[in-house]
Amino acid sequence: IMTVDWDIRQAERGGYPHFMLKEIMEQPDVWSDCLLGRIQGDRVVPEQIGLTPEYLQRVKHIQIIAAGTAYHAGLIGKSLIESLARIPVNVDVASEFRYAHPVMEPDTMVIAISQSGETADTLACLRLARELGHFTFSITNTVGSTAARESDAVAYTLAGPEIAVASTKAYTTQILVLTLIALALADIHGHPRPDLVRGLLQLPLLGHQVLDVMEPVKDMAERLASGHDVFYIGRGRDYALAMEGQLKIKEISYLHAEAYPAGELKHGTLALIEENTPVVVIMTERDVADKTVSNILEVKARGAEVWGIVDSSLPVGLPIDHRIDVAVDLPELSPVLAAIPLQLLAYYTAVARGEDVDQPRNLAKSVTVE
Amino acid sequence: IMTVDWDIRQAERGGYPHFMLKEIMEQPDVWSDCLLGRIQGDRVVPEQIGLTPEYLQRVKHIQIIAAGTAYHAGLIGKSLIESLARIPVNVDVASEFRYAHPVMEPDTMVIAISQSGETADTLACLRLARELGHFTFSITNTVGSTAARESDAVAYTLAGPEIAVASTKAYTTQILVLTLIALALADIHGHPRPDLVRGLLQLPLLGHQVLDVMEPVKDMAERLASGHDVFYIGRGRDYALAMEGQLKIKEISYLHAEAYPAGELKHGTLALIEENTPVVVIMTERDVADKTVSNILEVKARGAEVWGIVDSSLPVGLPIDHRIDVAVDLPELSPVLAAIPLQLLAYYTAVARGEDVDQPRNLAKSVTVE
Repeated sequence: IMTVDWDIRQAERGGYPHFMLKEIMEQPDVWSDCLLGRIQGDRVVPEQIGLTPEYLQRVKHIQIIAAGTAYHAGLIGKSLIESLARIPVNVDVASEFRYAHPVMEPDTMVIAISQSGETADTLACLRLARELGHFTFSITNTVGSTAARESDAVAYTLAGPEIAVASTKAYTTQILVLTLIALALADIHGHPRPDLVRGLLQLPLLGHQVLDVMEPVKDMAERLASGHDVFYIGRGRDYALAMEGQLKIKEISYLHAEAYPAGELKHGTLALIEENTPVVVIMTERDVADKTVSNILEVKARGAEVWGIVDSSLPVGLPIDHRIDVAVDLPELSPVLAAIPLQLLAYYTAVARGEDVDQPRNLAKSVTVE
Repeated sequence: IMTVDWDIRQAERGGYPHFMLKEIMEQPDVWSDCLLGRIQGDRVVPEQIGLTPEYLQRVKHIQIIAAGTAYHAGLIGKSLIESLARIPVNVDVASEFRYAHPVMEPDTMVIAISQSGETADTLACLRLARELGHFTFSITNTVGSTAARESDAVAYTLAGPEIAVASTKAYTTQILVLTLIALALADIHGHPRPDLVRGLLQLPLLGHQVLDVMEPVKDMAERLASGHDVFYIGRGRDYALAMEGQLKIKEISYLHAEAYPAGELKHGTLALIEENTPVVVIMTERDVADKTVSNILEVKARGAEVWGIVDSSLPVGLPIDHRIDVAVDLPELSPVLAAIPLQLLAYYTAVARGEDVDQPRNLAKSVTVE
């Protein structure tokens, strides 16, 4: 039995004007909590994320099910598990998966991700997976939640209570747990990555360093706040981050934001880019940076104003108008770092527009209806 | 060797003000061309879509690769193949897949979809799949194209020359070829659906009937034309149609359109719905119609104006403001019929806004760069 003690003071704003800002700022510390005890030496300890080496050895396919922000974490999980452990992963939106008559192979591990552990569609998928005889695993922030109780195994994100409707620290800790799973699978399936396991332990420090240089995000937000539309683009994990970035700003600032795989723009959405259209580009995957640069040139040629959240090792002179550097040491671990400026961009944009950051219109913290 | 004769007059506008309208209107006839000879009695003839029964018997997984409109056709293909043949299908955007270090199982059939057969990212994926030793299959409209030449097998969509940048008849014939593949696989894997095979032959007639009752779409378009944003929602194949609907209107009318799985709205995008926000809902999948109705009620509660493209057997009194009926006899075959009002909605909106329908800004017909 695992118990989690939530300090009641954690649920207070602690001097911050909004819970959301507090929850963004405390991420490096909750990352430490999330990683604590789960790594020994160069290895992830499977039992500390609810799994056994024997079971992990048997996994041949993975099906991730989630909704909203947790779905975006799942997309990053897919990329990490496939590239590190070479095990094929599907990620589906819960409300789609449950009615899609899905075909799942034997030895498919079904992973449900839900901050609250009470998301109605996600729970329905968990039950469907159990009925089909699959091993079910939940990643949740809530001890004793329905997802935790109804799964064969569970890993808690240990992010502490998240009060703001727009999820931040629950999201980045979901990514961390998925990274731990990817590294445990990689190790057991013959592709150990001790460098990444050790690198995980540096993330809290790196997170603090990112938070220390976020002042320019306020200016970006001031400019975004007066607009109506904004496009987020990226490739690979940076596209998954783009999806989360656009959702965050939609949720609390009500800009019509939309994410696109950078390479898909010219198949249609490029028609919407005109003089001064804001485009946020995320570039932390070095391997595809030059491809993304050619997409930036395409939007620049139509007059877009481009905000870049980029690997600090990329050269000066990128064709972008505003640059936020994120120090990317190990690209596989950078999503949680690059999430910070995206969260703050959404936050400061909403503040600049005078919106109710913690309680956005129309939305509930936990979606317990279908 | 298959040869296709294109009549030069087909490439003229034939009295229509735009190629796009001509190409929308001629869909029922090109569907006949596409189906001709490919069905015998109650069965699809695999050889007429470039495949052999022996090969189809061996297929255990399918990977579909495409971009833009062809990607949306691929999503409908996934739903049909999984539900009819019970073979698992992945669909990926070509520009993402090629750099994702994808994990593909043995006996994966790789299907590339491209109207031109020259889409650079799609061709790169085809080459990657061949290097990995997979059987490659192209669905293309262009005889002798690179995709056709570089694949192990090919099925032509036989839609005739498509001149308008925004794809219409190429899209619906891509769906038809995918339906033929799904039915051939279903038959060979022990789940024959003679009712659907026979039903395919009725589609040209049904398509003409749909075209005959599209007058109300003009009024819908007039109202949409004065706005800036529009959301398209649906579930399952209707979500795939929603994605194509939003792309079409983006491409030629420059509205900021966005598609969402109906059940995902409340995980964030619902925040953007306010008084008079236009929402287009597609409801041709009867099984999930009641779930979608509850999502309609959510957007109506925030003041949305709702356009419905719906199965004509659904009751009067749906909570929508404008209704376009599509006679859905066999839901699996309805996507090509429901595509028609979506295409015309985009077309008339662009006309109402005075845009250059056939040559939208920023876009090329065939994306031969990365």
